Amino acid sequence: MSATPHDALRAWFLGPRAENADLVERLVTEAVRDHVFWRRNYHPEDGAVIRETDKRSPGYEDAVATLTQELMGLLAELKRDVPFFSGRYKGHMLWQQTIASQVGYFAAMLYNPNNVTTEAAPVTTRLELEVAAQLARMIGYEPARAWGHLTSGGTVANFEALWIARNIRYLPVAAAVACREMGLAMEVTRPDGRTAGIGDLALHELLGLRNEDALDVWHALRSAVPRAEWHERIDRHTLAWAGYQEYTRELARQFGDPLPDGVVLVAATAHYSWEKIVRSLGIGSRQLVFVPVDRHFRLDPDALWARLTALGARRTPVIACVSVCGTTEESAVDRLDLVLEVRERAARELGFSFHVHSDACYGGYAAAVTRGADGTRRTAAAIRADIGTDWPDDDWLRAMAALERADSVTIDPHKLGYVPYPAGAILLRDRRARELVAVDPPYLTPSDERGGEERFIGRFIFEGSKPGAAAAAVWLSHKVLPLDERGYGFLIGRTVAGARALHAALGDDLAPFRLARLPVPDINVVCFVATHPSLATLAELNRFNEAVYRQLSLNKPGGDPEYIVTRTRVTSPHYDGAIEPVLRDLGVATHETWQRDPGGLVVLRATVMDPFLAERKPATDHVAGFVAALRRASVAALGPESLRGW
Amino acid sequence: MSATPHDALRAWFLGPRAENADLVERLVTEAVRDHVFWRRNYHPEDGAVIRETDKRSPGYEDAVATLTQELMGLLAELKRDVPFFSGRYKGHMLWQQTIASQVGYFAAMLYNPNNVTTEAAPVTTRLELEVAAQLARMIGYEPARAWGHLTSGGTVANFEALWIARNIRYLPVAAAVACREMGLAMEVTRPDGRTAGIGDLALHELLGLRNEDALDVWHALRSAVPRAEWHERIDRHTLAWAGYQEYTRELARQFGDPLPDGVVLVAATAHYSWEKIVRSLGIGSRQLVFVPVDRHFRLDPDALWARLTALGARRTPVIACVSVCGTTEESAVDRLDLVLEVRERAARELGFSFHVHSDACYGGYAAAVTRGADGTRRTAAAIRADIGTDWPDDDWLRAMAALERADSVTIDPHKLGYVPYPAGAILLRDRRARELVAVDPPYLTPSDERGGEERFIGRFIFEGSKPGAAAAAVWLSHKVLPLDERGYGFLIGRTVAGARALHAALGDDLAPFRLARLPVPDINVVCFVATHPSLATLAELNRFNEAVYRQLSLNKPGGDPEYIVTRTRVTSPHYDGAIEPVLRDLGVATHETWQRDPGGLVVLRATVMDPFLAERKPATDHVAGFVAALRRASVAALGPESLRGW
Repeated sequence: MSATPHDALRAWFLGPRAENADLVERLVTEAVRDHVFWRRNYHPEDGAVIRETDKRSPGYEDAVATLTQELMGLLAELKRDVPFFSGRYKGHMLWQQTIASQVGYFAAMLYNPNNVTTEAAPVTTRLELEVAAQLARMIGYEPARAWGHLTSGGTVANFEALWIARNIRYLPVAAAVACREMGLAMEVTRPDGRTAGIGDLALHELLGLRNEDALDVWHALRSAVPRAEWHERIDRHTLAWAGYQEYTRELARQFGDPLPDGVVLVAATAHYSWEKIVRSLGIGSRQLVFVPVDRHFRLDPDALWARLTALGARRTPVIACVSVCGTTEESAVDRLDLVLEVRERAARELGFSFHVHSDACYGGYAAAVTRGADGTRRTAAAIRADIGTDWPDDDWLRAMAALERADSVTIDPHKLGYVPYPAGAILLRDRRARELVAVDPPYLTPSDERGGEERFIGRFIFEGSKPGAAAAAVWLSHKVLPLDERGYGFLIGRTVAGARALHAALGDDLAPFRLARLPVPDINVVCFVATHPSLATLAELNRFNEAVYRQLSLNKPGGDPEYIVTRTRVTSPHYDGAIEPVLRDLGVATHETWQRDPGGLVVLRATVMDPFLAERKPATDHVAGFVAALRRASVAALGPESLRGW
Repeated sequence: MSATPHDALRAWFLGPRAENADLVERLVTEAVRDHVFWRRNYHPEDGAVIRETDKRSPGYEDAVATLTQELMGLLAELKRDVPFFSGRYKGHMLWQQTIASQVGYFAAMLYNPNNVTTEAAPVTTRLELEVAAQLARMIGYEPARAWGHLTSGGTVANFEALWIARNIRYLPVAAAVACREMGLAMEVTRPDGRTAGIGDLALHELLGLRNEDALDVWHALRSAVPRAEWHERIDRHTLAWAGYQEYTRELARQFGDPLPDGVVLVAATAHYSWEKIVRSLGIGSRQLVFVPVDRHFRLDPDALWARLTALGARRTPVIACVSVCGTTEESAVDRLDLVLEVRERAARELGFSFHVHSDACYGGYAAAVTRGADGTRRTAAAIRADIGTDWPDDDWLRAMAALERADSVTIDPHKLGYVPYPAGAILLRDRRARELVAVDPPYLTPSDERGGEERFIGRFIFEGSKPGAAAAAVWLSHKVLPLDERGYGFLIGRTVAGARALHAALGDDLAPFRLARLPVPDINVVCFVATHPSLATLAELNRFNEAVYRQLSLNKPGGDPEYIVTRTRVTSPHYDGAIEPVLRDLGVATHETWQRDPGGLVVLRATVMDPFLAERKPATDHVAGFVAALRRASVAALGPESLRGW
């Protein structure tokens, strides 16, 4: 690859010292003036409402004074905000945003389009669909078959994905009841590939069809019934219409078969918002089944198979399995390829299938690493040669390439897309699924429904009014940083190189302190635990790491921290599969004492979104600087006596 | 009141001809430079990562060229966006945004704080809570008792409100089961004021407690059980934990009393998103009970009483009643005071209560009209004298003042708050309710939970990452335009005056055409139907109005429309109570023919958010201009022969 991205990277961001201040100011001013003259060119015959003489009135002058004064107050307040832009920030998933996204957001915000409908956003709704198609192509979805849109963030995107997954899962039941009522015979394909009459399937079989087969039968049924009768003959039997309470009773009545409740399997490392999601959807926390992770914090496929076997034996419907691509805490990338293999095996051997969702809110953009400039997949060897690390291995590439076979994927542009909040995205492999959440507003005429995607995307999404500016931000950013080795692929590759350099340096001799590192991350979040020979118990160790965290946070007692990190808590049972080597390394607690402690193990966490970290020049070397600061923070946390004898 | 707001108004917005371009450019530049120097002042010893020599590399220059080029492309595209800023735009709920909000958003966006936690947004989370407290004070909530936050918009805010309402409704059931298991006696207050042992209440009685009594019993129960045992002894019995399927069966098992499903009552004019919300929550569309509206498109309190009586007779639990303050289509303001009276009567006479939510996403900011500069309520007479109209009457004031007694209220700053997307808000009258949706992320230590509101507001909200910039935008706008007669009250009063002027002018002689007007609006959305003597059927009339709409929309065949409006469809049964006078006026359809037509009645809709409309000077008089344009659009829609003989 040419050296171009290396230099381009320097033009993508304002810079830690606002090195590109002139560029940003020029573009922002351009956007303001361009908008100003657009207003003036619109029906110039209308004349001015605000005259120059009005501007000399005391009321006008007071208002301008108030505005200026209060803005100065806000700017002063913002000075106490977090310096995400700096190489010294290694906390949450935040760094600088691309200039393209900042300027794109601002330029479109002056127009304030509302992407709920083309009527209120003729330009930016198109940009939103383009952006979704770009993300879909990046992960390998067929653009003609897929569909996606932006959301306010990952929680809403994941919520929508699980809502859709549930709707798909229960469709065949509604179809079977509808067929029975209408005396209609209809064939379905079972997970093992054999066909059967829909009326011959037991309840748990109906709830175990493959997604595509469920959607097929639904569409076949709709084609067999005139549109005007859909509600009365079909939709009335759906969960969306009946609600859970009625549905639960109806299942018992119609099938005489009170199955266990439908469950959602999630990787034990899944974001805590999944609990909010199942609670609000009415699925219930109890039905959230955590699948253990392995030592790399990745969902353990064997454990998944064991769970599925047990659930199958009790005929428990599986609404979905949520695999994670880039965990919030460790940036671990589940072996999605193996998860999908397990699903195939379940279809063959256990006779049921389910929706597989990849929560790639954090890691999704890393798929850009796998794409060459011509859009083809790169080999792991080629990527390694470029980045100059032993990352990624072939398994990582297989896991990322498997995204194209997940039923739905969520990716947050406001995380590794380096764009301002708010920007989440949901992608569906089969666009037919979006119909399952469609609700029509009163102003949508029947004629609008044809080609309704172009006109009114609000029909297919959970949210209503939403900023077209977010779509413009992501769109412009993708134009400047393509979703391949020339753009985001390069950028994220640099952060991985930085994370690995940091991980290596954390192994340096810091005697008498020592850093017990979690495994080398799958992307760019480095986790570790600081320790000292005097710490004998888990409680002492946790207190010490909390104190180190405070030294390296904005809450540092008495001043400005040298660096900023975050911390998390690794608790049982979620981390049972991953904790053993860490505990052994630390030597202060057994698996049992750790399991009994509700505080778990406090782990320090450094997110490396800074692409300059790996360079270690020409400015401050923040790898070495961070390690040195960690040692000073450790001394401050444990007191000067911790150095006695050293 | 002084003339000050009249002049201040001219400084609040960029202006239809960008009259305040200099001001905006100055403030935006100030924000950029201020941010730039913040970066440079942070650890200046770190040195520059991007050197001036780097900027001379071809890769850098290419990247800048691409960025500039693509931004120009975006700016060119945006020219085809909707001219919301103009007096000619009378479509959706959009006009200009306040300069304060635009600059505030941009200034904070450069910092990109994430309001999920103070760790990622120490400044703007505080601003968000301030803004919520301001809105709470405006509607009359007790600040110490209330709680609120911003959301991405009205759908998520309403979703969260109903989620919370459901959780409250089912609490006493969980409490009763928990008490039974623990052998605990606990007193509760019944809706009629008498007390009873919780174990003595039947299921439908438990589901009919007042919100505050339900929260009281919950807190009493929690106090009686050590914290570590909450999950095992209490929370395990909640709907959030068990999920609907298990809960449905559990109710039957524990109480031997399979009640009808819980329903949600909504005004028939409620936004279509309520259907999405009940579907996703698992309540089901079938349980969404529409309450008829009266001739002013307001929820009919007598109809509500009739519904409640019928539901009570079948012992159907009522999860919530959603009243609307400012309907999307007509800006109708429900008589919330009467809705609350009906609830009191139900508690007394029918023995059950329920959550009352006001969907004030559109109309909430109009409460600013009712506040004097000192925060006290103004009289209707005083407001009328100021605005110079016969609006508002005492009933309107009673309805707005009743917001302080609703259990929850949602208000969108990105509608009548004139701030950019995304900004919705939810307010809870009793802050204890927020605990019912709390989910803790792994990095929240037990010590964080005390005073957790300040530290981690993400705990109590549905969404996760969200833009602190939105909070800064609303905050700065409220600083410049206070939520009383000097700021938003004045602004919205002007739009009401404009809407009434427009409504009056639509009664002008446009022969041979005629505009059948819906009633004078409660706020500022004017609805009407165009007609002509040659139109004999509802279908012809609808086709004609669709054609007029096309002439006055960006889809106008062959060019730029003179004005821009929207249209909606008034269908049965939702509008049964309101349609009679309109149909009589039009004379082309009976109630029955209208009811049979799935297309309903097409109604043209003009939203007046332009505060300058009422002035009709010094620029183009857009009242007269709009009426004249309507006539031309009608001729174009029906053809020149429509004028034959006139």
